[in-house]
Amino acid sequence: MPEKRYLFTPGPTPVPPEVLAALAQPIVHHRGPDFRVVYERCLARLRDVFRTEREVLLFTASGTGAFESAIANLVSPGDRVVAVTAGAFGERWVAMGEAFGADVVPLRYEWGETPSPDDLARTLADAGGAKAVFLVHSETSTGVVADIQALAAVAREAGALSIVDAVSSLGAVPLETDEWELDVVATGSQKALMCPPGLAMTAVSEAAYAAQGTGARFYYDWNRALKAQAAFDAAFTPAVSLVAALDVALGLLLDGGLESAFERHVRLGRACREGIKAMGLELFSPDEDRAAVVTAIRVPEGVDGSELLLLLRDRYGVTLAPGQGALKGKIFRIGHIGWFDVFDITTALAAVELALTELGADVERGLAVTRALEAFEHTRV
Amino acid sequence: MPEKRYLFTPGPTPVPPEVLAALAQPIVHHRGPDFRVVYERCLARLRDVFRTEREVLLFTASGTGAFESAIANLVSPGDRVVAVTAGAFGERWVAMGEAFGADVVPLRYEWGETPSPDDLARTLADAGGAKAVFLVHSETSTGVVADIQALAAVAREAGALSIVDAVSSLGAVPLETDEWELDVVATGSQKALMCPPGLAMTAVSEAAYAAQGTGARFYYDWNRALKAQAAFDAAFTPAVSLVAALDVALGLLLDGGLESAFERHVRLGRACREGIKAMGLELFSPDEDRAAVVTAIRVPEGVDGSELLLLLRDRYGVTLAPGQGALKGKIFRIGHIGWFDVFDITTALAAVELALTELGADVERGLAVTRALEAFEHTRV
Repeated sequence: MPEKRYLFTPGPTPVPPEVLAALAQPIVHHRGPDFRVVYERCLARLRDVFRTEREVLLFTASGTGAFESAIANLVSPGDRVVAVTAGAFGERWVAMGEAFGADVVPLRYEWGETPSPDDLARTLADAGGAKAVFLVHSETSTGVVADIQALAAVAREAGALSIVDAVSSLGAVPLETDEWELDVVATGSQKALMCPPGLAMTAVSEAAYAAQGTGARFYYDWNRALKAQAAFDAAFTPAVSLVAALDVALGLLLDGGLESAFERHVRLGRACREGIKAMGLELFSPDEDRAAVVTAIRVPEGVDGSELLLLLRDRYGVTLAPGQGALKGKIFRIGHIGWFDVFDITTALAAVELALTELGADVERGLAVTRALEAFEHTRV
Repeated sequence: MPEKRYLFTPGPTPVPPEVLAALAQPIVHHRGPDFRVVYERCLARLRDVFRTEREVLLFTASGTGAFESAIANLVSPGDRVVAVTAGAFGERWVAMGEAFGADVVPLRYEWGETPSPDDLARTLADAGGAKAVFLVHSETSTGVVADIQALAAVAREAGALSIVDAVSSLGAVPLETDEWELDVVATGSQKALMCPPGLAMTAVSEAAYAAQGTGARFYYDWNRALKAQAAFDAAFTPAVSLVAALDVALGLLLDGGLESAFERHVRLGRACREGIKAMGLELFSPDEDRAAVVTAIRVPEGVDGSELLLLLRDRYGVTLAPGQGALKGKIFRIGHIGWFDVFDITTALAAVELALTELGADVERGLAVTRALEAFEHTRV
């Protein structure tokens, strides 16, 4: 295996060196002044990134924990919820809702389809309403980014709370927690926030706080977390190293500007798609600006998708992501979330071109990198 | 505030530089071969430290999450459990059991008392049995280390599962998961395992797996975690940086030998107690070898405990821990868990001596450090 590694998966994502350096600082006590200044600033920066005036609850957990906090706090056994699902993460929230005893009504699409607000309105009407709607902003398994503003508006009109999985979207594509009146927004540290995995964050609306259910919870209890954070404390010993890293990463993101990050992701997505098309490959994820988080590509006829990814990894040190579930072997995915620039895209494309050629696929040589650079440079959002 | 910092709290604890360096490594994908070799070795090392043949489940969470996994998987609403509590963490598990709908029968002691197996036998008999007994090995809030082997044996004889909080004990004092037939042992990364906070681990007996309840769980679901780990995978994106750090830390611990670590903790405890007594201060935690994890000391008459800790921190850069709950202001605590040597003890003692003198307390000067060194050097376990 080559010495240099290229991590182009849609999570975990590459982490800037300043963030890695923050991780290696000596441990400080989570109730001392050294940590408090970091923690307070980090929580303020989270509010800026979530575009909310309310406290963002910070849990030591994988991103899944942020969504579990929503279900554990809101959903009482027997409550009806509608889960919009068009991929692996939508299905995860269906399973989680059922594990917590919810009456889950799925609005289920083929993986790769884009959820429609009209379908959601019909599903809610047919179900006779719901306490909450589970929504996925960026379905990392397919590359589809949904119109979460429109979907959440439909939920609100039907009297349901919106619970938004923004794990791979927050910081990469626009999301306005307060302006769009999203009730719960859940994310993790290891995607566009340019941090290692291990921190989960949840923004909670007043309406959601007021709608808390009877389900059992302790670790993810919102009231306990909110009370602690109001005193710049944490309910349980937080991952202080990861918080220090997150603070640095959010500083980088906000110093550059969220709008600039959103624009860069759009351009990275265009670059990736144009390069893929120039090679003669077929996109699986939509060929549209909104799909700026991860590009999913159909494995060409005659090529074994697993073999392609292993060759890329073991020969070239390039890690891409496979298809999940029924898409395993049929697609592969290039993430461009967070600390990515156009040369990451061209490296990924060049490696794919080499590997596919070696596997005997009929790909157009020598165009992908140039087309990607052109798409990145010569178009403006 | 001085530039040098001395972290002498019973968690988080200081982390060796090799462990900090591991944290700063570039992010690798959690399903790739670079991570897998680390993960597999880390899981094997965890089994060695837990002294178990069974898989140790690894969660991205604070230590509290490890205990929550036990309650979420075992306790169905209405199940009777006995909770042995003699401090802040015992009370936490009472509250958690109640949050999950258990019928919690507390065996409650004054904080600082040592739980007795006979009391537990009586409580279990009076209660007409219980599904599980919540036990705290090292009650970090008081410095008491319980005879967990004897307590768990009483639980087993009464047909109850033992659920052991070993957060501050595992790796510091002897604990034999398999030999003592402990059903659940829960710990966290940030104490004697010499890592930052953020990883929680749970060892689960066959009997405990067989006794799983009907309570809602997903993130902490044992079956999901076990199935993933059997394939050297994780159910949810793990905190890869923390796992890499834990692997290094466990390597250091096991290379030195667990027995050697246990002996060092006993000698550190002796050193700390002898120094404290030489100063003329009164111990709150027991003056016995078993109490090798944290030393709790009564704040002398006429001294404000909060003022003492702030002076130590802001003047000398020395962070000690306050009393919790009703003990706030009445005791202070010196942790000696994990990456500690005798010079950490003498530094803590010297700083306490200086600070108490400045606050006008009547302390014996010039003896504590020497007595501590003598106690450490000239006694063998």
